[in-house]
Amino acid sequence: MLSYSRSFRIEWGDCDPAGIVFYPRYFAMFDHNTTMLISAASGITKPQLLKRYDFAGYPVLTTQAKFMIPTTFGDDVEIESTFTRVGRSSFEIRHLLTNGGKLAVEAQEARAWVKASPEDKTKIKSHPLPEDLAAKFRGE
Amino acid sequence: MLSYSRSFRIEWGDCDPAGIVFYPRYFAMFDHNTTMLISAASGITKPQLLKRYDFAGYPVLTTQAKFMIPTTFGDDVEIESTFTRVGRSSFEIRHLLTNGGKLAVEAQEARAWVKASPEDKTKIKSHPLPEDLAAKFRGE
Amino acid sequence: MLSYSRSFRIEWGDCDPAGIVFYPRYFAMFDHNTTMLISAASGITKPQLLKRYDFAGYPVLTTQAKFMIPTTFGDDVEIESTFTRVGRSSFEIRHLLTNGGKLAVEAQEARAWVKASPEDKTKIKSHPLPEDLAAKFRGE
Amino acid sequence: MLSYSRSFRIEWGDCDPAGIVFYPRYFAMFDHNTTMLISAASGITKPQLLKRYDFAGYPVLTTQAKFMIPTTFGDDVEIESTFTRVGRSSFEIRHLLTNGGKLAVEAQEARAWVKASPEDKTKIKSHPLPEDLAAKFRGE
Repeated sequence: MLSYSRSFRIEWGDCDPAGIVFYPRYFAMFDHNTTMLISAASGITKPQLLKRYDFAGYPVLTTQAKFMIPTTFGDDVEIESTFTRVGRSSFEIRHLLTNGGKLAVEAQEARAWVKASPEDKTKIKSHPLPEDLAAKFRGE
Repeated sequence: MLSYSRSFRIEWGDCDPAGIVFYPRYFAMFDHNTTMLISAASGITKPQLLKRYDFAGYPVLTTQAKFMIPTTFGDDVEIESTFTRVGRSSFEIRHLLTNGGKLAVEAQEARAWVKASPEDKTKIKSHPLPEDLAAKFRGE
Repeated sequence: MLSYSRSFRIEWGDCDPAGIVFYPRYFAMFDHNTTMLISAASGITKPQLLKRYDFAGYPVLTTQAKFMIPTTFGDDVEIESTFTRVGRSSFEIRHLLTNGGKLAVEAQEARAWVKASPEDKTKIKSHPLPEDLAAKFRGE
Repeated sequence: MLSYSRSFRIEWGDCDPAGIVFYPRYFAMFDHNTTMLISAASGITKPQLLKRYDFAGYPVLTTQAKFMIPTTFGDDVEIESTFTRVGRSSFEIRHLLTNGGKLAVEAQEARAWVKASPEDKTKIKSHPLPEDLAAKFRGE
Protein backbone atom coordinates (compact mmCIF):
# COMPACT_ATOMS: atom_id res chain seq x y z
CA MET A 1 0.00 0.00 0.00
CA LEU A 2 1.26 3.49 -0.89
CA SER A 3 2.55 5.84 1.80
CA TYR A 4 3.43 9.57 1.96
CA SER A 5 5.31 11.58 4.60
CA ARG A 6 5.38 15.33 5.15
CA SER A 7 7.37 17.34 7.72
CA PHE A 8 6.35 20.83 8.73
CA ARG A 9 6.38 23.30 11.60
CA ILE A 10 3.31 23.79 13.81
CA GLU A 11 2.07 27.37 13.44
CA TRP A 12 1.07 29.87 16.15
CA GLY A 13 -2.36 30.13 14.49
CA ASP A 14 -2.87 26.34 14.78
CA CYS A 15 -2.74 26.60 18.58
CA ASP A 16 -5.34 27.53 21.18
CA PRO A 17 -5.13 29.48 24.46
CA ALA A 18 -3.71 26.34 26.17
CA GLY A 19 -0.75 26.76 23.80
CA ILE A 20 -1.37 23.43 22.05
CA VAL A 21 -2.77 22.55 18.64
CA PHE A 22 -6.55 23.18 18.48
CA TYR A 23 -7.57 19.61 17.58
CA PRO A 24 -9.77 20.47 14.53
CA ARG A 25 -6.57 21.79 12.93
CA TYR A 26 -5.08 18.26 13.01
CA PHE A 27 -7.86 17.16 10.65
CA ALA A 28 -6.96 19.99 8.24
CA MET A 29 -3.35 18.73 8.35
CA PHE A 30 -4.52 15.16 7.70
CA ASP A 31 -6.77 16.30 4.84
CA HIS A 32 -3.81 17.95 3.12
CA ASN A 33 -1.75 14.78 3.61
CA THR A 34 -4.50 12.71 1.97
CA THR A 35 -4.41 15.07 -1.01
CA MET A 36 -0.59 14.90 -1.18
CA LEU A 37 -0.73 11.07 -0.93
CA ILE A 38 -3.19 10.94 -3.85
CA SER A 39 -1.03 13.44 -5.77
CA ALA A 40 1.98 11.19 -5.14
CA ALA A 41 -0.03 8.24 -6.50
CA SER A 42 -1.31 10.05 -9.58
CA GLY A 43 1.60 12.38 -10.30
CA ILE A 44 -0.79 15.35 -10.69
CA THR A 45 -2.37 18.05 -8.50
CA LYS A 46 -5.95 17.86 -7.19
CA PRO A 47 -7.46 20.28 -9.79
CA GLN A 48 -5.81 18.25 -12.58
CA LEU A 49 -7.13 15.04 -10.97
CA LEU A 50 -10.72 16.36 -10.72
CA LYS A 51 -10.54 17.24 -14.43
CA ARG A 52 -8.86 14.07 -15.70
CA TYR A 53 -11.17 11.65 -13.88
CA ASP A 54 -14.27 13.92 -14.05
CA PHE A 55 -15.31 13.35 -10.42
CA ALA A 56 -16.43 15.59 -7.54
CA GLY A 57 -13.95 14.70 -4.78
CA TYR A 58 -13.30 12.19 -2.01
CA PRO A 59 -15.34 13.31 1.03
CA VAL A 60 -14.79 11.73 4.43
CA LEU A 61 -17.36 9.11 5.49
CA THR A 62 -15.96 8.34 8.94
CA THR A 63 -12.94 9.41 10.94
CA GLN A 64 -11.52 8.54 14.32
CA ALA A 65 -8.50 9.96 16.12
CA LYS A 66 -6.54 9.42 19.30
CA PHE A 67 -4.58 12.35 20.76
CA MET A 68 -1.70 11.05 22.87
CA ILE A 69 0.82 13.87 23.26
CA PRO A 70 0.11 17.59 22.76
CA THR A 71 2.13 19.51 20.16
CA THR A 72 2.84 23.23 20.27
CA PHE A 73 3.82 26.08 17.92
CA GLY A 74 7.41 25.83 16.72
CA ASP A 75 7.39 22.02 16.96
CA ASP A 76 8.64 20.31 13.82
CA VAL A 77 6.32 17.36 13.26
CA GLU A 78 5.91 14.65 10.65
CA ILE A 79 2.72 13.04 9.32
CA GLU A 80 2.97 9.66 7.62
CA SER A 81 -0.17 8.68 5.72
CA THR A 82 -0.79 5.18 4.34
CA PHE A 83 -3.64 3.50 2.47
CA THR A 84 -5.00 0.73 4.68
CA ARG A 85 -7.86 -0.41 2.42
CA VAL A 86 -8.69 0.27 -1.22
CA GLY A 87 -12.25 -0.79 -2.03
CA ARG A 88 -14.47 -0.52 -5.07
CA SER A 89 -15.71 3.03 -4.46
CA SER A 90 -14.13 3.90 -1.12
CA PHE A 91 -10.74 3.72 0.58
CA GLU A 92 -9.17 4.09 4.01
CA ILE A 93 -6.09 5.98 5.16
CA ARG A 94 -4.17 5.94 8.45
CA HIS A 95 -2.34 9.09 9.57
CA LEU A 96 0.46 8.97 12.16
CA LEU A 97 1.70 12.32 13.49
CA THR A 98 5.03 12.15 15.28
CA ASN A 99 6.76 14.89 17.25
CA GLY A 100 10.47 14.39 17.84
CA GLY A 101 10.03 10.73 16.88
CA LYS A 102 7.21 10.13 19.41
CA LEU A 103 3.71 9.21 18.22
CA ALA A 104 1.47 12.15 19.15
CA VAL A 105 -1.73 11.59 17.13
CA GLU A 106 -3.12 8.54 15.34
CA ALA A 107 -6.10 8.81 13.00
CA GLN A 108 -8.01 6.56 10.62
CA GLU A 109 -10.39 7.81 7.94
CA ALA A 110 -12.69 6.30 5.30
CA ARG A 111 -13.45 8.28 2.15
CA ALA A 112 -15.81 7.80 -0.78
CA TRP A 113 -15.02 8.50 -4.44
CA VAL A 114 -17.97 10.61 -5.63
CA LYS A 115 -19.46 12.07 -8.79
CA ALA A 116 -22.19 14.69 -9.15
CA SER A 117 -25.53 13.01 -9.75
CA PRO A 118 -26.57 13.25 -13.44
CA GLU A 119 -30.15 14.17 -12.41
CA ASP A 120 -29.10 16.88 -9.97
CA LYS A 121 -25.59 18.41 -10.19
CA THR A 122 -25.80 19.58 -6.57
CA LYS A 123 -26.11 15.99 -5.28
CA ILE A 124 -23.15 13.62 -5.07
CA LYS A 125 -23.11 9.82 -5.38
CA SER A 126 -20.35 7.30 -4.75
CA HIS A 127 -18.75 5.96 -7.90
CA PRO A 128 -16.21 3.17 -8.63
CA LEU A 129 -12.57 4.24 -8.24
CA PRO A 130 -10.73 4.42 -11.58
CA GLU A 131 -8.84 1.10 -11.80
CA ASP A 132 -5.46 2.63 -12.79
CA LEU A 133 -5.60 4.88 -9.74
CA ALA A 134 -6.75 2.10 -7.37
CA ALA A 135 -3.75 0.03 -8.48
CA LYS A 136 -1.43 2.93 -7.62
CA PHE A 137 -3.14 3.39 -4.22
CA ARG A 138 -2.41 -0.30 -3.53
CA GLY A 139 1.23 0.30 -4.51
CA GLU A 140 1.06 -2.10 -7.47
CA MET B 1 -27.03 53.02 3.56
CA LEU B 2 -28.09 49.62 4.89
CA SER B 3 -26.63 48.27 8.13
CA TYR B 4 -26.60 44.87 9.90
CA SER B 5 -25.61 43.92 13.46
CA ARG B 6 -24.76 40.50 14.86
CA SER B 7 -23.91 39.55 18.45
CA PHE B 8 -22.03 36.36 19.26
CA ARG B 9 -19.61 34.80 21.71
CA ILE B 10 -15.89 34.54 20.88
CA GLU B 11 -14.90 30.86 20.73
CA TRP B 12 -11.91 29.10 22.30
CA GLY B 13 -10.86 27.97 18.82
CA ASP B 14 -10.79 31.58 17.55
CA CYS B 15 -8.02 32.39 20.04
CA ASP B 16 -4.27 31.88 19.95
CA PRO B 17 -1.71 30.97 22.64
CA ALA B 18 -1.75 34.60 23.87
CA GLY B 19 -5.40 33.93 24.74
CA ILE B 20 -6.73 36.55 22.31
CA VAL B 21 -8.48 36.27 18.95
CA PHE B 22 -6.05 35.15 16.22
CA TYR B 23 -6.50 38.17 13.93
CA PRO B 24 -7.21 36.24 10.68
CA ARG B 25 -10.33 34.94 12.44
CA TYR B 26 -11.70 38.51 12.64
CA PHE B 27 -11.79 38.56 8.83
CA ALA B 28 -13.82 35.32 8.81
CA MET B 29 -16.25 37.01 11.23
CA PHE B 30 -16.43 40.10 8.99
CA ASP B 31 -16.94 37.94 5.88
CA HIS B 32 -19.95 36.28 7.49
CA ASN B 33 -21.33 39.70 8.46
CA THR B 34 -21.01 40.87 4.84
CA THR B 35 -23.01 37.81 3.75
CA MET B 36 -25.64 38.41 6.44
CA LEU B 37 -25.85 42.10 5.45
CA ILE B 38 -26.45 41.14 1.81
CA SER B 39 -28.99 38.51 2.93
CA ALA B 40 -30.76 41.21 4.94
CA ALA B 41 -30.85 43.40 1.82
CA SER B 42 -32.06 40.66 -0.52
CA GLY B 43 -34.19 38.61 1.86
CA ILE B 44 -32.57 35.37 0.64
CA THR B 45 -29.56 33.20 1.55
CA LYS B 46 -26.26 33.27 -0.39
CA PRO B 47 -26.90 30.06 -2.41
CA GLN B 48 -30.31 31.45 -3.45
CA LEU B 49 -28.67 34.79 -4.32
CA LEU B 50 -25.96 33.13 -6.49
CA LYS B 51 -28.71 31.30 -8.37
CA ARG B 52 -31.17 34.18 -8.75
CA TYR B 53 -28.61 36.69 -10.05
CA ASP B 54 -26.43 34.09 -11.84
CA PHE B 55 -23.13 35.49 -10.57
CA ALA B 56 -19.96 34.02 -9.04
CA GLY B 57 -19.63 35.92 -5.75
CA TYR B 58 -18.31 39.16 -4.26
CA PRO B 59 -14.57 38.66 -3.64
CA VAL B 60 -12.59 41.16 -1.59
CA LEU B 61 -10.45 43.61 -3.58
CA THR B 62 -8.88 45.46 -0.65
CA THR B 63 -9.24 45.39 3.11
CA GLN B 64 -7.74 47.31 5.99
CA ALA B 65 -8.18 46.83 9.69
CA LYS B 66 -7.17 48.47 12.95
CA PHE B 67 -6.98 46.34 16.09
CA MET B 68 -7.45 48.51 19.16
CA ILE B 69 -8.47 46.27 22.06
CA PRO B 70 -7.91 42.49 22.25
CA THR B 71 -10.92 40.20 22.69
CA THR B 72 -10.82 36.78 24.30
CA PHE B 73 -12.88 33.53 24.38
CA GLY B 74 -16.13 33.91 26.28
CA ASP B 75 -16.43 37.61 25.36
CA ASP B 76 -19.81 38.54 23.91
CA VAL B 77 -19.08 40.90 21.04
CA GLU B 78 -21.10 42.72 18.40
CA ILE B 79 -20.21 43.48 14.79
CA GLU B 80 -22.06 46.28 13.01
CA SER B 81 -21.55 46.30 9.25
CA THR B 82 -22.63 49.17 7.00
CA PHE B 83 -22.38 49.90 3.29
CA THR B 84 -20.17 52.97 2.85
CA ARG B 85 -20.14 53.09 -0.96
CA VAL B 86 -22.25 51.33 -3.60
CA GLY B 87 -20.65 51.68 -7.04
CA ARG B 88 -21.44 50.30 -10.46
CA SER B 89 -19.73 46.92 -10.06
CA SER B 90 -18.16 47.20 -6.60
CA PHE B 91 -19.12 48.27 -3.11
CA GLU B 92 -17.54 49.05 0.25
CA ILE B 93 -18.47 47.96 3.77
CA ARG B 94 -17.25 49.14 7.17
CA HIS B 95 -17.21 46.67 10.08
CA LEU B 96 -17.12 47.85 13.71
CA LEU B 97 -16.52 45.18 16.37
CA THR B 98 -17.39 46.27 19.89
CA ASN B 99 -16.70 44.42 23.12
CA GLY B 100 -18.73 45.53 26.13
CA GLY B 101 -19.63 48.69 24.19
CA LYS B 102 -15.98 49.59 23.47
CA LEU B 103 -14.71 49.70 19.88
CA ALA B 104 -12.17 46.85 19.57
CA VAL B 105 -11.64 46.43 15.81
CA GLU B 106 -12.47 48.67 12.85
CA ALA B 107 -12.23 47.38 9.28
CA GLN B 108 -13.06 48.65 5.80
CA GLU B 109 -13.34 46.42 2.74
CA ALA B 110 -14.00 46.85 -0.98
CA ARG B 111 -15.60 44.00 -2.92
CA ALA B 112 -16.31 43.36 -6.59
CA TRP B 113 -19.46 41.80 -8.03
CA VAL B 114 -18.16 39.10 -10.38
CA LYS B 115 -19.34 36.63 -13.01
CA ALA B 116 -17.50 33.70 -14.54
CA SER B 117 -15.96 34.71 -17.86
CA PRO B 118 -17.98 33.34 -20.83
CA GLU B 119 -14.74 32.31 -22.59
CA ASP B 120 -13.27 30.52 -19.57
CA LYS B 121 -15.55 29.46 -16.69
CA THR B 122 -12.57 29.30 -14.32
CA LYS B 123 -11.87 33.04 -14.76
CA ILE B 124 -13.96 35.70 -13.06
CA LYS B 125 -14.71 39.26 -14.28
CA SER B 126 -16.36 42.18 -12.53
CA HIS B 127 -19.93 42.81 -13.60
CA PRO B 128 -22.49 45.59 -12.92
CA LEU B 129 -24.45 45.14 -9.68
CA PRO B 130 -28.14 44.31 -10.28
CA GLU B 131 -29.92 47.65 -9.92
CA ASP B 132 -32.69 46.35 -7.58
CA LEU B 133 -30.03 45.01 -5.21
CA ALA B 134 -27.87 48.15 -5.39
CA ALA B 135 -30.92 50.22 -4.38
CA LYS B 136 -31.42 47.97 -1.35
CA PHE B 137 -27.71 48.26 -0.44
CA ARG B 138 -28.14 52.05 -0.48
CA GLY B 139 -31.17 51.67 1.80
CA GLU B 140 -33.57 53.13 -0.77
CA MET C 1 -27.35 13.53 31.64
CA LEU C 2 -27.19 17.23 30.68
CA SER C 3 -27.82 18.30 27.09
CA TYR C 4 -27.34 21.55 25.12
CA SER C 5 -28.64 22.60 21.68
CA ARG C 6 -27.44 25.40 19.42
CA SER C 7 -28.84 26.52 16.06
CA PHE C 8 -26.75 28.51 13.61
CA ARG C 9 -26.18 29.17 9.92
CA ILE C 10 -23.33 27.46 8.04
CA GLU C 11 -20.88 30.09 6.79
CA TRP C 12 -19.32 30.49 3.33
CA GLY C 13 -15.88 30.26 4.96
CA ASP C 14 -16.76 26.89 6.54
CA CYS C 15 -17.14 25.35 3.08
CA ASP C 16 -14.63 23.98 0.59
CA PRO C 17 -14.46 24.08 -3.24
CA ALA C 18 -17.02 21.24 -3.37
CA GLY C 19 -19.41 23.73 -1.74
CA ILE C 20 -19.86 21.63 1.41
CA VAL C 21 -18.54 22.05 4.95
CA PHE C 22 -14.79 21.31 5.14
CA TYR C 23 -15.01 18.49 7.70
CA PRO C 24 -12.38 19.84 10.16
CA ARG C 25 -14.75 22.78 10.66
CA TYR C 26 -17.38 20.41 12.11
CA PHE C 27 -14.96 19.66 14.95
CA ALA C 28 -14.59 23.40 15.65
CA MET C 29 -18.40 23.60 15.82
CA PHE C 30 -18.50 20.61 18.18
CA ASP C 31 -15.75 22.08 20.36
CA HIS C 32 -17.77 25.26 20.82
CA ASN C 33 -20.85 23.20 21.68
CA THR C 34 -18.85 21.32 24.35
CA THR C 35 -17.84 24.67 25.85
CA MET C 36 -21.43 25.94 25.73
CA LEU C 37 -22.67 22.69 27.32
CA ILE C 38 -20.17 23.08 30.17
CA SER C 39 -21.14 26.77 30.51
CA ALA C 40 -24.78 25.71 30.71
CA ALA C 41 -23.82 23.26 33.49
CA SER C 42 -21.70 25.73 35.45
CA GLY C 43 -23.53 28.96 34.71
CA ILE C 44 -20.23 30.73 33.90
CA THR C 45 -18.03 31.33 30.84
CA LYS C 46 -14.88 29.30 30.10
CA PRO C 47 -12.38 31.96 31.37
CA GLN C 48 -14.36 32.19 34.64
CA LEU C 49 -14.42 28.38 34.84
CA LEU C 50 -10.63 28.07 34.33
CA LYS C 51 -10.14 30.59 37.13
CA ARG C 52 -12.71 29.22 39.61
CA TYR C 53 -11.56 25.59 39.36
CA ASP C 54 -7.88 26.42 38.72
CA PHE C 55 -7.43 23.90 35.92
CA ALA C 56 -5.88 23.95 32.44
CA GLY C 57 -8.74 22.80 30.21
CA TYR C 58 -10.49 19.70 28.89
CA PRO C 59 -8.45 18.45 25.89
CA VAL C 60 -9.84 15.77 23.60
CA LEU C 61 -8.46 12.25 24.13
CA THR C 62 -10.34 10.49 21.34
CA THR C 63 -12.98 11.46 18.82
CA GLN C 64 -14.91 9.67 16.12
CA ALA C 65 -17.38 11.03 13.60
CA LYS C 66 -19.68 9.77 10.88
CA PHE C 67 -20.64 12.13 8.06
CA MET C 68 -23.95 11.10 6.54
CA ILE C 69 -25.37 14.09 4.65
CA PRO C 70 -23.34 17.10 3.41
CA THR C 71 -24.30 20.58 4.59
CA THR C 72 -23.66 23.78 2.69
CA PHE C 73 -23.37 27.56 3.33
CA GLY C 74 -26.71 29.16 4.14
CA ASP C 75 -28.04 25.96 5.73
CA ASP C 76 -29.53 26.50 9.19
CA VAL C 77 -28.35 23.56 11.27
CA GLU C 78 -28.68 22.46 14.88
CA ILE C 79 -26.14 20.66 17.09
CA GLU C 80 -27.40 18.80 20.15
CA SER C 81 -24.65 17.80 22.57
CA THR C 82 -25.18 15.42 25.48
CA PHE C 83 -22.94 13.94 28.17
CA THR C 84 -22.84 10.17 27.65
CA ARG C 85 -20.36 9.32 30.43
CA VAL C 86 -19.03 11.29 33.39
CA GLY C 87 -16.01 9.57 34.92
CA ARG C 88 -13.56 10.45 37.66
CA SER C 89 -11.23 12.60 35.57
CA SER C 90 -12.70 12.28 32.09
CA PHE C 91 -16.07 12.51 30.38
CA GLU C 92 -17.71 11.74 27.06
CA ILE C 93 -20.04 13.82 24.88
CA ARG C 94 -22.13 12.90 21.83
CA HIS C 95 -22.84 15.56 19.19
CA LEU C 96 -25.72 15.23 16.72
CA LEU C 97 -25.84 17.74 13.87
CA THR C 98 -29.18 17.93 12.08
CA ASN C 99 -30.00 19.83 8.90
CA GLY C 100 -33.69 20.44 8.27
CA GLY C 101 -34.47 17.78 10.87
CA LYS C 102 -32.27 15.13 9.20
CA LEU C 103 -29.24 13.71 11.00
CA ALA C 104 -26.19 14.88 9.00
CA VAL C 105 -23.22 14.24 11.33
CA GLU C 106 -22.84 12.13 14.46
CA ALA C 107 -19.74 12.42 16.66
CA GLN C 108 -18.54 11.04 19.97
CA GLU C 109 -15.63 12.48 21.97
CA ALA C 110 -13.79 11.70 25.20
CA ARG C 111 -12.09 14.51 27.10
CA ALA C 112 -9.79 14.69 30.11
CA TRP C 113 -9.96 17.25 32.91
CA VAL C 114 -6.37 18.49 33.24
CA LYS C 115 -4.18 20.64 35.46
CA ALA C 116 -0.69 21.97 34.79
CA SER C 117 1.91 19.72 36.39
CA PRO C 118 3.30 21.29 39.63
CA GLU C 119 6.86 20.29 38.60
CA ASP C 120 6.61 21.70 35.09
CA LYS C 121 3.91 24.25 34.28
CA THR C 122 4.18 23.44 30.55
CA LYS C 123 3.08 19.82 31.15
CA ILE C 124 -0.50 18.86 31.80
CA LYS C 125 -1.88 15.93 33.86
CA SER C 126 -5.38 14.55 34.22
CA HIS C 127 -7.08 15.51 37.48
CA PRO C 128 -10.34 14.49 39.20
CA LEU C 129 -13.40 16.45 38.04
CA PRO C 130 -14.75 18.81 40.73
CA GLU C 131 -17.66 16.88 42.32
CA ASP C 132 -20.18 19.76 42.14
CA LEU C 133 -19.53 20.11 38.41
CA ALA C 134 -19.64 16.34 37.76
CA ALA C 135 -23.08 16.23 39.42
CA LYS C 136 -24.29 18.99 37.10
CA PHE C 137 -22.85 17.16 34.07
CA ARG C 138 -24.89 14.11 35.13
CA GLY C 139 -27.98 16.34 35.36
CA GLU C 140 -28.39 15.73 39.10
CA MET D 1 16.16 45.29 6.01
CA LEU D 2 15.83 41.54 6.57
CA SER D 3 13.69 39.43 4.23
CA TYR D 4 12.32 35.85 4.28
CA SER D 5 10.73 33.75 1.52
CA ARG D 6 8.61 30.62 1.81
CA SER D 7 7.15 28.46 -0.96
CA PHE D 8 4.20 26.15 -0.36
CA ARG D 9 1.18 24.59 -1.99
CA ILE D 10 -2.32 26.07 -1.48
CA GLU D 11 -4.51 23.53 0.31
CA TRP D 12 -8.07 22.41 -0.53
CA GLY D 13 -9.10 23.49 2.97
CA ASP D 14 -7.79 27.04 2.36
CA CYS D 15 -10.31 27.51 -0.44
CA ASP D 16 -13.99 28.46 -0.46
CA PRO D 17 -16.94 27.36 -2.62
CA ALA D 18 -15.73 29.69 -5.39
CA GLY D 19 -12.64 27.45 -5.51
CA ILE D 20 -10.27 30.25 -4.51
CA VAL D 21 -8.43 31.01 -1.26
CA PHE D 22 -10.84 32.22 1.44
CA TYR D 23 -9.16 35.60 2.08
CA PRO D 24 -8.87 35.31 5.90
CA ARG D 25 -6.55 32.33 5.23
CA TYR D 26 -4.06 34.67 3.51
CA PHE D 27 -3.61 36.46 6.84
CA ALA D 28 -2.87 33.12 8.56
CA MET D 29 -0.22 32.50 5.87
CA PHE D 30 1.24 35.98 6.41
CA ASP D 31 1.23 35.52 10.19
CA HIS D 32 3.32 32.38 9.83
CA ASN D 33 5.71 34.19 7.49
CA THR D 34 6.16 36.95 10.08
CA THR D 35 7.04 34.31 12.67
CA MET D 36 9.45 32.59 10.26
CA LEU D 37 11.04 35.98 9.42
CA ILE D 38 11.60 36.71 13.12
CA SER D 39 12.93 33.16 13.60
CA ALA D 40 15.34 33.76 10.73
CA ALA D 41 16.48 36.98 12.44
CA SER D 42 16.86 35.43 15.89
CA GLY D 43 17.93 31.91 14.97
CA ILE D 44 15.37 30.44 17.41
CA THR D 45 11.72 29.31 17.36
CA LYS D 46 8.85 31.44 18.73
CA PRO D 47 8.50 29.57 22.08
CA GLN D 48 12.26 29.99 22.64
CA LEU D 49 11.98 33.68 21.69
CA LEU D 50 9.08 34.30 24.13
CA LYS D 51 11.17 32.73 26.88
CA ARG D 52 14.51 34.39 26.08
CA TYR D 53 13.11 37.93 25.80
CA ASP D 54 10.34 37.43 28.39
CA PHE D 55 7.64 39.11 26.33
CA ALA D 56 4.04 38.31 25.40
CA GLY D 57 4.12 38.44 21.60
CA TYR D 58 3.87 40.81 18.65
CA PRO D 59 0.15 41.44 18.00
CA VAL D 60 -0.99 43.19 14.84
CA LEU D 61 -1.95 46.87 15.23
CA THR D 62 -3.03 47.53 11.64
CA THR D 63 -3.06 45.57 8.42
CA GLN D 64 -4.04 46.30 4.85
CA ALA D 65 -4.13 44.01 1.85
CA LYS D 66 -4.81 44.17 -1.87
CA PHE D 67 -6.02 41.01 -3.63
CA MET D 68 -5.10 41.17 -7.31
CA ILE D 69 -5.21 37.63 -8.70
CA PRO D 70 -7.09 34.68 -7.14
CA THR D 71 -5.12 31.57 -6.18
CA THR D 72 -6.55 28.07 -5.98
CA PHE D 73 -5.79 24.67 -4.34
CA GLY D 74 -2.79 22.95 -5.90
CA ASP D 75 -1.14 26.27 -6.80
CA ASP D 76 2.47 26.52 -5.66
CA VAL D 77 2.88 30.04 -4.32
CA GLU D 78 5.66 32.05 -2.68
CA ILE D 79 5.42 34.67 0.06
CA GLU D 80 8.29 37.12 0.47
CA SER D 81 8.17 39.09 3.73
CA THR D 82 10.39 42.10 4.43
CA PHE D 83 10.74 44.52 7.33
CA THR D 84 9.81 47.99 6.07
CA ARG D 85 10.16 49.88 9.37
CA VAL D 86 11.76 48.97 12.70
CA GLY D 87 10.72 51.42 15.40
CA ARG D 88 11.25 51.65 19.14
CA SER D 89 8.43 49.31 20.21
CA SER D 90 6.76 48.47 16.90
CA PHE D 91 7.72 47.36 13.41
CA GLU D 92 6.22 46.96 9.95
CA ILE D 93 6.38 44.11 7.47
CA ARG D 94 5.36 43.88 3.81
CA HIS D 95 4.18 40.53 2.41
CA LEU D 96 4.17 39.80 -1.33
CA LEU D 97 2.45 36.61 -2.46
CA THR D 98 3.31 35.53 -5.99
CA ASN D 99 1.73 32.74 -8.02
CA GLY D 100 3.75 31.54 -10.98
CA GLY D 101 5.85 34.67 -10.70
CA LYS D 102 2.83 37.02 -10.82
CA LEU D 103 2.00 39.23 -7.85
CA ALA D 104 -1.33 37.97 -6.47
CA VAL D 105 -1.61 39.59 -3.01
CA GLU D 106 0.20 42.50 -1.39
CA ALA D 107 -0.13 43.23 2.32
CA GLN D 108 1.37 45.60 4.85
CA GLU D 109 1.15 45.14 8.62
CA ALA D 110 2.26 47.01 11.76
CA ARG D 111 2.92 45.06 14.94
CA ALA D 112 3.70 46.01 18.52
CA TRP D 113 6.22 44.32 20.80
CA VAL D 114 4.27 43.69 24.02
CA LYS D 115 4.75 42.52 27.61
CA ALA D 116 2.15 41.54 30.16
CA SER D 117 1.38 44.46 32.44
CA PRO D 118 3.08 44.05 35.88
CA GLU D 119 -0.14 45.19 37.62
CA ASP D 120 -2.41 42.83 35.71
CA LYS D 121 -0.94 39.82 33.88
CA THR D 122 -4.00 39.60 31.61
CA LYS D 123 -3.31 43.07 30.16
CA ILE D 124 -0.59 43.69 27.61
CA LYS D 125 1.47 46.87 27.06
CA SER D 126 3.86 47.84 24.29
CA HIS D 127 7.52 47.59 25.28
CA PRO D 128 10.82 48.62 23.60
CA LEU D 129 12.19 46.05 21.15
CA PRO D 130 15.38 44.35 22.40
CA GLU D 131 18.20 46.27 20.68
CA ASP D 132 20.09 43.15 19.49
CA LEU D 133 16.95 41.88 17.79
CA ALA D 134 16.04 45.27 16.28
CA ALA D 135 19.51 45.40 14.70
CA LYS D 136 18.92 41.98 13.14
CA PHE D 137 15.49 43.07 11.87
CA ARG D 138 17.20 46.02 10.16
CA GLY D 139 19.69 43.56 8.61
CA GLU D 140 22.68 45.12 10.40
